[in-house]
Amino acid sequence: MLRINKNYIKLKKNYLFREINEKVEYFKKKNKVNDIISLGIGDVSMPLANEIVEKMSTSIFEQTKKQSFKGYPPEEGYLFLREAIRKYYAKRKVEISNNEIFISNGAGCDVANLTDIFSKSDILIQNPTYPAYYDANFLSGNKIEFVLTTEENDFVPISPKKKKQYIIYLCSPNNPTGQTMNKLQLQKWIDYANETKSIIIFDVAYEKFIEGDYPHSIYELKGAKTCAIEVASFSKSAGFTNLRVSYSIVPFELERENIKINDLWKRRQSTYFNGVPYHLQKGAEFTLGDIGQNLCDKNIDVYKQNSKKLCRVLQEKGLKIYGNKCSPYIWFKCPNQMSSWEYFDFLLENYHIVGIPGDGFGECGKNYFRFSCLGTKEDIDDAILRLNKL
Amino acid sequence: MLRINKNYIKLKKNYLFREINEKVEYFKKKNKVNDIISLGIGDVSMPLANEIVEKMSTSIFEQTKKQSFKGYPPEEGYLFLREAIRKYYAKRKVEISNNEIFISNGAGCDVANLTDIFSKSDILIQNPTYPAYYDANFLSGNKIEFVLTTEENDFVPISPKKKKQYIIYLCSPNNPTGQTMNKLQLQKWIDYANETKSIIIFDVAYEKFIEGDYPHSIYELKGAKTCAIEVASFSKSAGFTNLRVSYSIVPFELERENIKINDLWKRRQSTYFNGVPYHLQKGAEFTLGDIGQNLCDKNIDVYKQNSKKLCRVLQEKGLKIYGNKCSPYIWFKCPNQMSSWEYFDFLLENYHIVGIPGDGFGECGKNYFRFSCLGTKEDIDDAILRLNKL
Repeated sequence: MLRINKNYIKLKKNYLFREINEKVEYFKKKNKVNDIISLGIGDVSMPLANEIVEKMSTSIFEQTKKQSFKGYPPEEGYLFLREAIRKYYAKRKVEISNNEIFISNGAGCDVANLTDIFSKSDILIQNPTYPAYYDANFLSGNKIEFVLTTEENDFVPISPKKKKQYIIYLCSPNNPTGQTMNKLQLQKWIDYANETKSIIIFDVAYEKFIEGDYPHSIYELKGAKTCAIEVASFSKSAGFTNLRVSYSIVPFELERENIKINDLWKRRQSTYFNGVPYHLQKGAEFTLGDIGQNLCDKNIDVYKQNSKKLCRVLQEKGLKIYGNKCSPYIWFKCPNQMSSWEYFDFLLENYHIVGIPGDGFGECGKNYFRFSCLGTKEDIDDAILRLNKL
Repeated sequence: MLRINKNYIKLKKNYLFREINEKVEYFKKKNKVNDIISLGIGDVSMPLANEIVEKMSTSIFEQTKKQSFKGYPPEEGYLFLREAIRKYYAKRKVEISNNEIFISNGAGCDVANLTDIFSKSDILIQNPTYPAYYDANFLSGNKIEFVLTTEENDFVPISPKKKKQYIIYLCSPNNPTGQTMNKLQLQKWIDYANETKSIIIFDVAYEKFIEGDYPHSIYELKGAKTCAIEVASFSKSAGFTNLRVSYSIVPFELERENIKINDLWKRRQSTYFNGVPYHLQKGAEFTLGDIGQNLCDKNIDVYKQNSKKLCRVLQEKGLKIYGNKCSPYIWFKCPNQMSSWEYFDFLLENYHIVGIPGDGFGECGKNYFRFSCLGTKEDIDDAILRLNKL
C-alpha cells in the first residue's frame, strides 16, 4: 500500500514567504505598480566582497585540472572548514571538536531535517518564531506546544514550570522579534533541558548581529553540551543566502536513551545528503579569517545603520519597538490596534512597502509587524522618505 | 516525550562506501601501502572543461555587484535552468512543463527525501541496487520488498505477478549492474504501476551513458506521467559530483488519493530546502547547450573507453560480465566461487585495487563485483597492467 503523508494536506497554509510574494505580485499587476520596496523577507542585499568571490572563483577553477579535480565532497564537510569553525569558537573559549561539526546547505534545512532522527516527539517552539520549525515538525507528525512570548515578558521565552521532555527550538537573536537571551535566561533553559532530558535546537543564524554581553553560542554556558545542538549559517553572517553554506554542531556528550545523537546525525547526513561544494567551503573558510571577518563586518554595519535609522523613524511615529539591537529585524506593534495583516495591506497600498505580518510567525504576533533591515541603504532611505511623507 | 527514531539503531550497517573507505584506510596504514587504485566509488575523475567553469565563475562574480547580486535562490530552481531542461527533454519529443521540474542538490538526496511525502508505505526495490533507496526507506519506517534480479533474468527487473500497490524504485541504466531496460521491459512496469496505482521513482542518473534504442526518460513511454517521478542529475552527465546540481520531474498528472504529488513535493521542498546557488545553475544550463553537451560527451567518452578496455581484460580472464554498454559500471561474477567480500580482500591485498563487493548492493550481489570506469585513463591503464601481471 502507498500512503500519502496526510500532514501535508492538513497543513493547508502556504509557506509564509511564498504567500506574501503572491499577494505582492497580485497587487503589482492589479495596480500596475512597479516601485515596491521590500522590508519583508529576511534576505541580504549587499554584494559580496571581491576578495571572497575571488577565493571561490580560484577554488572552482581547481576543477579544471586533473591533479586538483574534486569529486563528491565529504558529507560532513571538508576538514579545513570544520577546523576554521573550531577556531572561530575557540576565540570565545568554546571548545568543540572537528567531528562535532557538520557542514550543510542551510540552517533552515538542518532545523527541518533534524526531525528525521526523532519520531513522534513533543516539540516546544517559541511563539512568535521562524515558521519552518513549526512546519517541518508538523509535517513530521510531531506534537507541537508553544512557549508564548508577549509584551509582558518582553518577548523573551521562559522555560515552563511543568517538567516535561521536549525537543525545544530556540532562536537567539530571535527571528522575528530580534530579542536576544542573556546568559541567565539561556542558562535556565539549559538547566531545564538537562533536568527533563530535553534537547535544545539552538539557532544562531543571527549571531553576528549581537552587541554587548549576550551569548553567541549556547556552548558558552555550563551544561549545554549534554543537551543542545547548535545550528549556524553563513547566510546572514557572510551574505551567503544564495550560496548555501551552514553548519550544525552536535556534541559527543549529547546522548539520549544511551544513544549518541552525533552518530545519528552523521548517519542521517551520509544517507540523505551529499555535502557542499569545495569552492563554497573555501569561500566560507575565508570569511572566518581576519580579512574575511572585516569584509563581512562592513556589510553587517550597513544593515545595523539601516536598522538604527528606521527605528528612529518608527519611534518618532510613536510605535513601540522590541529587540533590534542584536538583530537585523525590527519588531513593533501595529498602530491603531490594526491586525498585522490589516497593517500589511495598509503599508502595501499606501506606501508600496512590504513587511511581514507578525501573525505569520504565530498567534503571539497577530498585532505586531516585522521589518527587515537587510535591504540596501538606498532602499531603507527610500522607505524612510515614504514613511515620513504620510 | 522525546523519541529517537529507532530505525537508525536497527540499521546497524555502515553506509557502504564509508565502510569500504574505512577498510582501505586500515589496509593502507597497516601495510604502509600508498599505491591503491580505486575502481570503487562511482565518482567522476575527469576535470571540468574550462568553458563550463568560466561560466560559473562569471556568474558568481555577479554576486559582487549591487545590481546583479542575488539572495535566496528559488526553491524550485531558476526558470532559465528549468527551461533548458524542458528543451533537453523536448529534443526526445518528451513534453514536460517548467513547473513539473524541481532543481535540487543531488539525485541521491531526492530519492531519499521523496520518502517524506509518503508514510508507512510498501516499497519495492530492485536487488541488487544503489543502497540509498533501501537505507532511506528503512530509516523512514517503510516496509521494503525486493525484486530479485539474477543471472537467470540477465539482471533485468521484472514486474511481479502479484498485483499490489507500491512505491517502486527503478534505476536504468542500473547501478551497480549496468543493465538498462528496453522499452518493452519498462512499459510493463508502467502498466503495472498504473494498474496497481503504484508510483515509480525512476532514477536516470546514468542516462548519458545509454547507447542504442533504450529509453532515456520514462516519459518517452505511454502512461508514465500518471505513475512516475523521474530523478536526474548533473553528477555523472556533466561531472558535477562536487557541485551538487540535480533535478526531479513530478508530472501534474500524477495523483494518488486525489492529491497532486507535484503539490506535495513543492511544499516539501519549500519547507526543507532552500535551493541551489545561481552560478551552479548557470553552469548546469551551459552543459545542456550544444557546446556544453560536446564538452561533457568528451568526458563520457573517456569513461566509455575505460570500460571497453577493462571489460576486454576481464573477459580474457574468463569472467562473465553483465551490463556495461550503457553504463560506467562493470558487473561481473567473482572467480572461483569467491564471495564478493572475499574477492574484495583478494583484489586489495594482491593488486592494491579497490572495487565494490556486490553484496553491498543486496543479497543478489553476494557473488558479484562492481568496477567503476569513472577513473582517469591513467588509473584504468595502471589497473589493467596490474590485473595482467598475475
